[in-house]
Amino acid sequence: MNDAHYAVILAGGRGERFWPLSRHHRPKQLLRLVGEQTLLAQAVDRLAGLIPPERVYVVTNQDLVEACRIAAPRVPPEQIIGEPVGRDTAAAAALGAALIKARDPQAAFCILTADHVIGDEDTFRATLRESLALARRAPWLCTIGIPPTEPSTGYGYIEVGDPLEEAGGIVFQRAKRFVEKPDAATAQRYLEAGTFCWNSGMFIWSVSTLEAALRQHCPGLAALIAELTPHVGSPRWEPELKRVYERLDKISIDYALMEKADNIVMVRGTFAWDDVGSWPALANHFPADSAGNVVIGDAVTQDAHTNIIYSQGRLTALIGVQDLVVVQAEDATLICPRDQAQQVKKVVEQLKQNERLAPKVL
Amino acid sequence: MNDAHYAVILAGGRGERFWPLSRHHRPKQLLRLVGEQTLLAQAVDRLAGLIPPERVYVVTNQDLVEACRIAAPRVPPEQIIGEPVGRDTAAAAALGAALIKARDPQAAFCILTADHVIGDEDTFRATLRESLALARRAPWLCTIGIPPTEPSTGYGYIEVGDPLEEAGGIVFQRAKRFVEKPDAATAQRYLEAGTFCWNSGMFIWSVSTLEAALRQHCPGLAALIAELTPHVGSPRWEPELKRVYERLDKISIDYALMEKADNIVMVRGTFAWDDVGSWPALANHFPADSAGNVVIGDAVTQDAHTNIIYSQGRLTALIGVQDLVVVQAEDATLICPRDQAQQVKKVVEQLKQNERLAPKVL
Repeated sequence: MNDAHYAVILAGGRGERFWPLSRHHRPKQLLRLVGEQTLLAQAVDRLAGLIPPERVYVVTNQDLVEACRIAAPRVPPEQIIGEPVGRDTAAAAALGAALIKARDPQAAFCILTADHVIGDEDTFRATLRESLALARRAPWLCTIGIPPTEPSTGYGYIEVGDPLEEAGGIVFQRAKRFVEKPDAATAQRYLEAGTFCWNSGMFIWSVSTLEAALRQHCPGLAALIAELTPHVGSPRWEPELKRVYERLDKISIDYALMEKADNIVMVRGTFAWDDVGSWPALANHFPADSAGNVVIGDAVTQDAHTNIIYSQGRLTALIGVQDLVVVQAEDATLICPRDQAQQVKKVVEQLKQNERLAPKVL
Repeated sequence: MNDAHYAVILAGGRGERFWPLSRHHRPKQLLRLVGEQTLLAQAVDRLAGLIPPERVYVVTNQDLVEACRIAAPRVPPEQIIGEPVGRDTAAAAALGAALIKARDPQAAFCILTADHVIGDEDTFRATLRESLALARRAPWLCTIGIPPTEPSTGYGYIEVGDPLEEAGGIVFQRAKRFVEKPDAATAQRYLEAGTFCWNSGMFIWSVSTLEAALRQHCPGLAALIAELTPHVGSPRWEPELKRVYERLDKISIDYALMEKADNIVMVRGTFAWDDVGSWPALANHFPADSAGNVVIGDAVTQDAHTNIIYSQGRLTALIGVQDLVVVQAEDATLICPRDQAQQVKKVVEQLKQNERLAPKVL
């Protein structure tokens, strides 16, 4: 066999935290939050030279397939797959494995995210390249851990164990355990201990290693691969996919596999990485003016300090306010204090109950 | 002659305090701030039964003539007059007198404002009716004073003198003096004294009484009437208007006349009156929700209190903010604390310096 590598980009999120810019049919991965391209397009493009678009698969919601095809036009359209129903990341990973196994049963592939911002792309690609090489020669479940820079309570953590190997400056270590999002005190302890990394949600393994692990820890998803692989590219694909998906439970890769398996290795991701989970997180990617305001788009300010203003296509004028997030979308505006930006989900919930407004702005 | 009455509605203001809703070509009087009609159309309509549109004149800026004609379609278009240059209210009043004198030299007429909100319209019309009758039978310069309800520093005041007469429940008193906008302590004293009324900027007089007073106190404007009246309706009108206006000084009716003349009478305006000088003032005309938010248009709120939200045509979502004014216009948004709403003029000034943004949003 050749040693071509593959990627499965998980692009199923809804991204309510970026409302009103994100909408049901325009989630975060389809926004141009940072740079000229959508986050999804950037996720494809940054694989250049390592995994070409014709070996990239995108797994998304059925109703986002067309939008993803438009956003990532170099990925072959039939490789942008809509899940009949959302069954969380483990099912999406297994679906990706089925698609790739049909093409190359010896393949190694990576599971990547569609909605993160990643810098130092050479380091990122080197990390994937070495991880794919490792996954091809040994039955490791490899995950990318990010050395933490702050005691974040927004990420899961990986406790790092013994060194495994180093290749081309890329460091592999055993993973002792996966832990869920901690409280602030625990996060602080993890940071100080120096033996924890953030769980980036990116994984590298071979089809056969993943299948073996699923057979042991999550047989339903091993069955998914076995049942779906024969139908890839056939007229039976759509009905089989629907039939198989409907009986699945919702379960994440972390729960299904990473918290159970003992053949886990962590590769240290030393590139810049941010899951950009909120408007204030986004603001970190832009310069502030002399009053500390971050303006993306057009704004004028008078005695206004340390606000975050996303105002593309219209003008926002702020007078005498501090520490606000102001987001302008085509037909809706969000205004909230920076430290309450997470509450935007509540507004989305409130709008879902509003039969008059919901069709316009969700 | 008949005893028909006339009105001159002053509609020349720019209304920067309502930016971003008000614009250079869409000042306050052309906004639908309260009710379905523009404030100008309401000023015409509330004269119904007293002064029909064919005896109403609107004096405005040259570049607002067409917009005023559209807003007040029942006023004959040739009676909506553009001043070649702005020369404040005394010139506009004299211009109105020239137009009316050409039609009926014995007429009495009122000078009215285009951008105020007036309730109790029957009382308003009765006030005008009795004032016009008085102006027709005696050489008084009559002004409408509003009994103050709070120690406002935003209005000029009239000190009230001896009773003159009462007709149909409408009370006339001599006016002792006109005073400019006071400081807070003085305004409080005026309120407690009970002998001061707000200067509404509305006046009632006959053409001949006004002319006589101008000859005495402001001869340049008396000359305006004498020079322009013969040209009303002639091809010489436009060039004569331009010639006469250019040599005028800017001066208000108060300075030119009311602070100098001794034949001034004040009629008590007991109708509801508000010059609606700011967004918070406008909010007083709308009900608040249970959290004290006044919403004009569409908004959703979470833990947000006593905000003023003008959001027609788009949705505003507020989370966790208090005492803000949020105004959405078609292409711009204003956000400021309620008590800094007057600062919007600074933003307009700032925008005037911005060559890229100014053409779009001013």
